[in-house]
Amino acid sequence: MTESQSASGDLEMIVHGPSGRNKPETRLWLRMLSTTKLITTEIRRRLRAEFGATLPQFDLMAQLYRETDGLRLGELSKRTMVTNGNVTGLVERLETDGLVKRVTPDKDRRVTVAQLTPAGTELFTAMAAAHEGWLRELFADLDAETVNALWSDIGRVKSSASNHLSGSEVE
Amino acid sequence: MTESQSASGDLEMIVHGPSGRNKPETRLWLRMLSTTKLITTEIRRRLRAEFGATLPQFDLMAQLYRETDGLRLGELSKRTMVTNGNVTGLVERLETDGLVKRVTPDKDRRVTVAQLTPAGTELFTAMAAAHEGWLRELFADLDAETVNALWSDIGRVKSSASNHLSGSEVE
Repeated sequence: MTESQSASGDLEMIVHGPSGRNKPETRLWLRMLSTTKLITTEIRRRLRAEFGATLPQFDLMAQLYRETDGLRLGELSKRTMVTNGNVTGLVERLETDGLVKRVTPDKDRRVTVAQLTPAGTELFTAMAAAHEGWLRELFADLDAETVNALWSDIGRVKSSASNHLSGSEVE
Repeated sequence: MTESQSASGDLEMIVHGPSGRNKPETRLWLRMLSTTKLITTEIRRRLRAEFGATLPQFDLMAQLYRETDGLRLGELSKRTMVTNGNVTGLVERLETDGLVKRVTPDKDRRVTVAQLTPAGTELFTAMAAAHEGWLRELFADLDAETVNALWSDIGRVKSSASNHLSGSEVE
């Protein structure tokens, strides 16, 4: 349970040295960053091991799962923070695997949208259930109150950061 | 201050839909992830705007700042999570700019290590001070108690996740 159990190469320790030297906000940020990286790395590992999938594939399928009418590739790129070029390659790969198809919707014959196939929907449903289980497992040592307090407090971090983005200084 | 002020393309909303549908751990994780991405994007933007620097450059210089004896490129790669190939390119670029030099230490003539030059040290000191100020600004709407509670609670998330990594299941 000690901090030293964290993976070697822990950002929190290595970016700016032991956290005692840092201001509280910097110390908190480095801990948020290192914790997020630790969990993201673990989720990548499990997606690959259990489904042979990458995190961008999972994110992309999550978008298509929500939008049963399908999404244009440009819109998929925006929603997943995957670049336009990479989205094309990802969709082609998923198409080859029979998980995604590209169709021209009746309501607008000029565009092409990507949709999950039934096989894609089935696979994503299994991945999402596994993903939820992994998080329950990774967070298992926390009680419900801590999970709720964190959700609320991180919401305040997000609001604060949103209020102080460079773009919001124009006001 | 509302959630809807978050940037468009917010992972928390788009990956799995409105958070009400998710289990508490998944809901918390998506919020952690989207908040970390929001702040990382802002720090990238400010590093570029104010110093013409990238986040990997900043992280790499942070490592060299701590290790005044210098670091081998392989070690730099491990500590920054930048791949070996990219570290070489980054160090060459910083060398061209006069911020880093490669030297052969007296104690081991077989290896080459990268060190910050005095100009590199001066620049990194300015970047680290700015970075600290940006975080204070981005977290400005939070009181000290919330910052401390978050630091402690996220430490518990990190311990829990560390205890449940795939690798730790062998026990």
